Amino acid sequence: MNHPVHLATLKKPLPASLIAVLSLIFADRFSTVQAVREHHGRDESSYAPMPPDAVIFAQSSEEVAAAVKLCSAHDVPVIAYGSGTSLEGHLLAVQGGVSIDLSLMDKIVALHPEDLTATVQAGVKRKQLNLEIKDNGLFFPIDPGADASLGGMAATRASGTNAVRYGTMRDNTLALTVVTADGRIIKTGTRARKSSAGYDLTRVFVGSEGTLGIITEVTVKLYPLPEAISAAVCSFGSAGDAVNAVIQTIQMGVPVARVEFLDENSVKAINAYDKMNLPEKPLLLFEFHGTPASVEEQAQLVQSIADEHGASGFEWASWPEDRSRLWAARHNAFFALLQMRPGSRSISTDCCVPISRLAECILDTKADCEKHGIVYSIIGHVGDGNFHVLMLVDPDHADEIALAEQVNHDMVSRAIAMDGTCTGEHGVGLHKMPFLIEEHGEGAIDTMRAIKHALDPKNIMNPGKIVDW
Amino acid sequence: MNHPVHLATLKKPLPASLIAVLSLIFADRFSTVQAVREHHGRDESSYAPMPPDAVIFAQSSEEVAAAVKLCSAHDVPVIAYGSGTSLEGHLLAVQGGVSIDLSLMDKIVALHPEDLTATVQAGVKRKQLNLEIKDNGLFFPIDPGADASLGGMAATRASGTNAVRYGTMRDNTLALTVVTADGRIIKTGTRARKSSAGYDLTRVFVGSEGTLGIITEVTVKLYPLPEAISAAVCSFGSAGDAVNAVIQTIQMGVPVARVEFLDENSVKAINAYDKMNLPEKPLLLFEFHGTPASVEEQAQLVQSIADEHGASGFEWASWPEDRSRLWAARHNAFFALLQMRPGSRSISTDCCVPISRLAECILDTKADCEKHGIVYSIIGHVGDGNFHVLMLVDPDHADEIALAEQVNHDMVSRAIAMDGTCTGEHGVGLHKMPFLIEEHGEGAIDTMRAIKHALDPKNIMNPGKIVDW
Repeated sequence: MNHPVHLATLKKPLPASLIAVLSLIFADRFSTVQAVREHHGRDESSYAPMPPDAVIFAQSSEEVAAAVKLCSAHDVPVIAYGSGTSLEGHLLAVQGGVSIDLSLMDKIVALHPEDLTATVQAGVKRKQLNLEIKDNGLFFPIDPGADASLGGMAATRASGTNAVRYGTMRDNTLALTVVTADGRIIKTGTRARKSSAGYDLTRVFVGSEGTLGIITEVTVKLYPLPEAISAAVCSFGSAGDAVNAVIQTIQMGVPVARVEFLDENSVKAINAYDKMNLPEKPLLLFEFHGTPASVEEQAQLVQSIADEHGASGFEWASWPEDRSRLWAARHNAFFALLQMRPGSRSISTDCCVPISRLAECILDTKADCEKHGIVYSIIGHVGDGNFHVLMLVDPDHADEIALAEQVNHDMVSRAIAMDGTCTGEHGVGLHKMPFLIEEHGEGAIDTMRAIKHALDPKNIMNPGKIVDW
Repeated sequence: MNHPVHLATLKKPLPASLIAVLSLIFADRFSTVQAVREHHGRDESSYAPMPPDAVIFAQSSEEVAAAVKLCSAHDVPVIAYGSGTSLEGHLLAVQGGVSIDLSLMDKIVALHPEDLTATVQAGVKRKQLNLEIKDNGLFFPIDPGADASLGGMAATRASGTNAVRYGTMRDNTLALTVVTADGRIIKTGTRARKSSAGYDLTRVFVGSEGTLGIITEVTVKLYPLPEAISAAVCSFGSAGDAVNAVIQTIQMGVPVARVEFLDENSVKAINAYDKMNLPEKPLLLFEFHGTPASVEEQAQLVQSIADEHGASGFEWASWPEDRSRLWAARHNAFFALLQMRPGSRSISTDCCVPISRLAECILDTKADCEKHGIVYSIIGHVGDGNFHVLMLVDPDHADEIALAEQVNHDMVSRAIAMDGTCTGEHGVGLHKMPFLIEEHGEGAIDTMRAIKHALDPKNIMNPGKIVDW
């Protein structure tokens, strides 16, 4: 997929003096090797890579600050890189510059089990964090599909399957350490659970996708591991029935921990990929957290709601192994679908709407995909009104790409018309930029631009993303 | 209590041409009457009033925008006024200007019970909102002590007794309509439950105390009224025991809806004011929401935790009348204490710390008050680590005021040293401004200032608050 050329033409070569000083400081942690640059110029979107001119592997906030100061002095762009798993072109070096890879910053800085908080370096990944806190009886709920870094998750305002109960990175980030565009290191909050002490800098940077500063440490809320967990799966005659069961569950205030929708195409792909035998119909996957009694009660309530909507094959998975298998299959859905059309690439997108409009939005988007003969699947964190469309295209066929982009465009317009948003959790990157004015209006975009200009006056922080300069 | 004079000296008289055009537009909803101005130049803090030069009673976002545009053209400050119940001097017209009273904007703009959202004009008060949504089986949980306006609650990032379960205005505001400093009307979000579509403008304005723009409409999350509610009250031998029982409750993940701490002074005041017979010892007041079975289970768990910490007199209040009486007493605690020293004024303050430090922070602050012989009480939303100190001073005795301010100063320094915040829910106003650098550091304050300069380049939006220009 090609990106408009005007962005690429803004690239300037790195000044030799900057290369010299960065090499001196970072030694073998500074690289201009083609393969390293290529690796840092792509993400999991379908965009062709746009490599940075150099890559630094930073080990501390101080190193990041030093690199940003030097780049700022030379008006050179800097792009923070975590695990490379963003989905909308966030990492592409559309104006060249230096990629600052934070993956070596993978230490837990401070764990406070008694306060249910952890402070981690930006490169710590979510599975690593969960592994390190498990013995304290704690977990961190935010789980985007990939094993993303906490810094990247904060930068993209990530969420995942647990958001319906535990919220997103917006709600679970207490404080950040950020390197600003002029190379200062600031802290945006404390470990207090709430504060009214001035502007909410934490949430200014959460979701800013590296365009306002580079997140180097993240302080998050943790949760006690639930005493009891159970999962349930059931199938429906139509996507509409499944989604309506979820709507009623949310409206009744049942505190489900997770509720995922998989359309029949997702189920087929999972059956093939994970060797499972799920009925190839629209499916809901529930998880309940609480005491044994409350988990039992929630599940019975949900089962009766599902029954009202014609659910079949309601099955329980109280054993950890069965639960893990189901949720692993859900997390593999992206890769499973890719196998349905070897050689294809996926154009993925997401949107989020008020929950009463969710069934309509999903059904209309499905109809669109069917009409265009696209190989696709729809998966949703439906408790939030959020769903994903994965469309498989032949990367060599521009017409297929154009059709998929048309489906994306129409889905976004539909979501915005329903008072929803063009992305619930992927972020803007390059792919959703064209939709922001439609969603927010010119005045709001001007306000975002004013913040960008104020905090990054030289436009060196991941330039060309979120808002046009 | 006197405010530093240098702020007051910045006042300039309103230009006659501005008065003329505002009178023309707003007719009898424009006032320069002394009593009206005085009323709009004070809040519930102990600061002496600093009246604006004029007051406008606006009826729409468009009227607010028109007023702001005119004031901007004349470089005249504008201060949004909701219900006048802020606690830290937020509303004082330290540089004069025009107060824009939003209390006439008291309409529910849109109620979407099926999506659990409501959009209201900024002047709608929390009790009014709850009354209007009750028949839909819904409630809005945020409950600062006063019957505040939703606009003011968003502007100060308010919370209250339910925050431990339901979050604060930060978490429960989906979108805002805001009049910017140049008089444009923008929307900061949609009704989607989550979004990653660009900078989080909603949270830029939530907590900005009218210094970045004027909030004219608020879209909030609503919740299904719990099927069952019960309350419990119990007493402890010491404040430390009470707080430690709460800490353990939170660490175990019990989803309490409310847990309030009242010290023995608060209980004495309430007994006198509300004619109650509570044991005059440190007390915890709990509320549980859920199904009948889960409420029962939570309550039993909490009772056993409280027992471990030597609780006595554990009493249930499952009847709505008993619950209402208890919570009304809690909400009256501020007024009850004022009666303990007729003729006095209250200097109130709050802070918030990581919960493991809460007992220590409260006990040290109590010791401070005792040492200085101050008439005081401590009340806390202790599930969040947040507590309030109310100190009664003779407004004519500067030394009493100075002592109370010393206690406030020491409490804030203590909270910040514990990685807490100088205010959990009151906001900054004038009273907490001196502490922001200590809490956030210079780099973060410079970042806040850069945002202020970008969004309010003429410094006309509630100037002199939060950060120095």
